[in-house]
Amino acid sequence: MFNTETNLFHINVLREFSTRVFLHFGCSKEDADQAADVLACADLRGIDSHGVARLHSYFELLSSGAINPKPRIEIIRSSMSTATVDGDNGLGLVVGPRANRVAMEMAEKAGSGWISVRNSNHFGIAGYYVLKALERDLIGWAMTNASKLVAPLGGAERMLGTNPIAIGFPGKEEPPIVIDMATSAAAYGKIEMAQRKGTAIPSGWAIDSEGAGTTKPEGMIHGGALLPLGSDHEHGGHKGYCLAVMVDVLSGVLSGANWGPFAPPFALRQELEIPIRSVGKGIGHFFGAMRIDGFIDVDAFKSEVDEYVRVFRATKPAPRTEGPLIPGDPEREAEKARRENGVPLIPAVLEALRDISAKTGIPFH
Amino acid sequence: MFNTETNLFHINVLREFSTRVFLHFGCSKEDADQAADVLACADLRGIDSHGVARLHSYFELLSSGAINPKPRIEIIRSSMSTATVDGDNGLGLVVGPRANRVAMEMAEKAGSGWISVRNSNHFGIAGYYVLKALERDLIGWAMTNASKLVAPLGGAERMLGTNPIAIGFPGKEEPPIVIDMATSAAAYGKIEMAQRKGTAIPSGWAIDSEGAGTTKPEGMIHGGALLPLGSDHEHGGHKGYCLAVMVDVLSGVLSGANWGPFAPPFALRQELEIPIRSVGKGIGHFFGAMRIDGFIDVDAFKSEVDEYVRVFRATKPAPRTEGPLIPGDPEREAEKARRENGVPLIPAVLEALRDISAKTGIPFH
Repeated sequence: MFNTETNLFHINVLREFSTRVFLHFGCSKEDADQAADVLACADLRGIDSHGVARLHSYFELLSSGAINPKPRIEIIRSSMSTATVDGDNGLGLVVGPRANRVAMEMAEKAGSGWISVRNSNHFGIAGYYVLKALERDLIGWAMTNASKLVAPLGGAERMLGTNPIAIGFPGKEEPPIVIDMATSAAAYGKIEMAQRKGTAIPSGWAIDSEGAGTTKPEGMIHGGALLPLGSDHEHGGHKGYCLAVMVDVLSGVLSGANWGPFAPPFALRQELEIPIRSVGKGIGHFFGAMRIDGFIDVDAFKSEVDEYVRVFRATKPAPRTEGPLIPGDPEREAEKARRENGVPLIPAVLEALRDISAKTGIPFH
Repeated sequence: MFNTETNLFHINVLREFSTRVFLHFGCSKEDADQAADVLACADLRGIDSHGVARLHSYFELLSSGAINPKPRIEIIRSSMSTATVDGDNGLGLVVGPRANRVAMEMAEKAGSGWISVRNSNHFGIAGYYVLKALERDLIGWAMTNASKLVAPLGGAERMLGTNPIAIGFPGKEEPPIVIDMATSAAAYGKIEMAQRKGTAIPSGWAIDSEGAGTTKPEGMIHGGALLPLGSDHEHGGHKGYCLAVMVDVLSGVLSGANWGPFAPPFALRQELEIPIRSVGKGIGHFFGAMRIDGFIDVDAFKSEVDEYVRVFRATKPAPRTEGPLIPGDPEREAEKARRENGVPLIPAVLEALRDISAKTGIPFH
C-alpha cells in the first residue's frame, strides 16, 4: 500500500492478491495469472468497475461452484478463419484470453481470425483483448454480451446487456487508437453512483419500470432499464439498440450461448434477475483479429494512423474544451498516473477485498 | 408512371431510366444494371436520399469525367481471408458490389472474407451489401467513409462522414435482422428538410460554425457540423465519434483511400467542401462476409434468429408505443408498400430526372 489515507495501492499488490484468490479455488498458475492480468488492466486503465472491484463477485461465484476453475476450453467447430470456442463454464477472464489467442493465431495464418465463444462468464474489459492484438501488430476486435440492463428502443423492460464493442489500430510513433465502448447511453455504475450521492440522473439515461423516462436513479434500479446509445428515437436510440443486437447475435446466437434477456447474471446477488429460461450455454463473446499486411504495408498503415491521430488532435476545439480526444487517450493517461501513483480504491471495494482475505486466509494489506 | 398526382413511379421505370443513364456514359451493360440495382434497392426500402434522388449527382460526376465509367477494378493485395481492392475511380455502385462479391467468395472458401476498398465513390446504401450476403446465407458487413459532415465530440468543425455500419443475420421463417445505421445522431437530409420547412431542429443534432449547439438548420448548414450518435458527452457522444473513426480507419486508412476531412465530396455542387489535400485515393469502403457454418449449424442458427426476433417482438412496449421494432422492419415494410404502389418522388427529384432526360435524350415519363 502506498498511502493508507487515500487508499492508493500499487498494481502489483492488487495483481498478487487476485492471483492468490484464483489459485485458492484451484485455478492453474497460468490461469490465475491470466485472470489477474485482465483485472489489473482495468484497474490501471481507470475502468474501476471492471477491476478488483469485481473480485468479490468472482470469489462468490467460485465459492459456490457456479464457475468452473479448471475448464477444458475447446474449439468445437472451425474453418480456416473462423471458430466457435466452448469455455466449459470457466472464468471469462481465462476463456476470453484463450479464445482471443485462437483468433490471433488464426489471423497470423489465414489473414484474419473470428471467434464466437459460448459457455463463458464475464470477461473483464473488452479493451484488454484489443491491446493484446496490438502487441502483435494485429487489428483486434472484441465484443461480449452480458446480463440484461438495457431496454430495446420502444420497450419498457430490460432485454439486452450493455454489450460493448472494442477495436484497436496500432500507430507508429503516436499511441494506438483504442476504442472500447458500451452500447448503452450510460453505464450502470453511473446510476448507482447517483443513487449513493442522492443526485438526479440526466434524462436520456434510463426508464422506470413502466417504461417512462426517469431522472431518479431508483426509478431505473428498481425494475427500470438503461436506454441504448442515442437515448430516444429523435437522437438515434434505435441505432444504439441495433448495435447491442449486433453484439448479442455475434456473441450469443452465433456461438450457442444465451442471448438477450436470457444471459445469466454476473453476480449471485442479482438473484431476482435470474433469467426465466436458458437458450444456450453461459454468456457469449466475439473476437476478431486481422493482419494489417493482408491489406496494406504494415509500416505505411502505422504511419498513416500517426497522421490520423495528429490531424484529429488539431481539430478546431469546441468552445470551452481542449478539442477532441483520440479514442484511448483517457485510459492511457489513467494508466500512466496509476503506474506512478497507485490505484485508488474506494472504501467499499477495500472492505470487499478484506472480506475475501478473512474468508480465504490470503493476506491483504 | 402509376399516378401523376402523387408522383408514384413503378420501380421498373426508375430502374430502366437509371440503367440507360449509366449506359449513356459508356458503362457496360452489366455495370449499368448493377448500379441501377443499388439505387432501386434504396428507393424500394424507403431510403429516398440514396436512390434516384442521387442520380443527378452521378450524372454530373460522369458528365464532367470525375468518375471513370469503365474502371479496371483490381485486387491489389490479399491473404486467404482479406484483400484490398482498388476501384479505379469507378462508380461506388459498381465497385462496392464487386468488392462485396470478393468478400463473399472468399468467405465461401476460407470461412470469412474481409475487403478494404480504395479509389471508389459513393456506394449507395450499406444495407444493399448485407442483403446480397443474406441471399447466400452469409453474415454480411458493410461500412463506408464519406465526405465530412460530422464533428468529433469536442470539435467545432466537420472532420468525419456519417460513416454507416450495416450487418445482416438470416432468419428461417422470420425475416432477417438487417442493421443499417449512420454513426451520426441524425441524417443531413433531416437538417435540409427542416430548413425547407422553416422549422427548428432538436438540440443534440448539430453545432454551428463556432462549435456551439444549435437548433437552427442554417446554423449547421452554413459551416456547422452534425453531432455524432450520442450527441454530447453526457449521453455518449464520444461513442458515436469512436464508431465513425472505426469505420473511417477500416474503410479509408486500411485501404489507402482518403480519410476523415480529406474524403472527397460526393456532389460537384459541394465545391466549397473540396478537401485541402489528398491523403489517398478516392473514398473507402469495408466489407465482410462470414460463413455461418464456420461457427454453428446454419439451420440451428437461423431457427435461433427466428426465436430472437419473436422474443424481442414480445418485449413489453413503452407507453404509447407498439413496442420495439426488429432492425430491418421499417425498410421491409416500405419495400412491400412500394412494390405494390410504386415509389413516391418529390417534385425536386422529378425535376432533376427530367433535366437528365433533356440533356441525354433518354425518355422519362
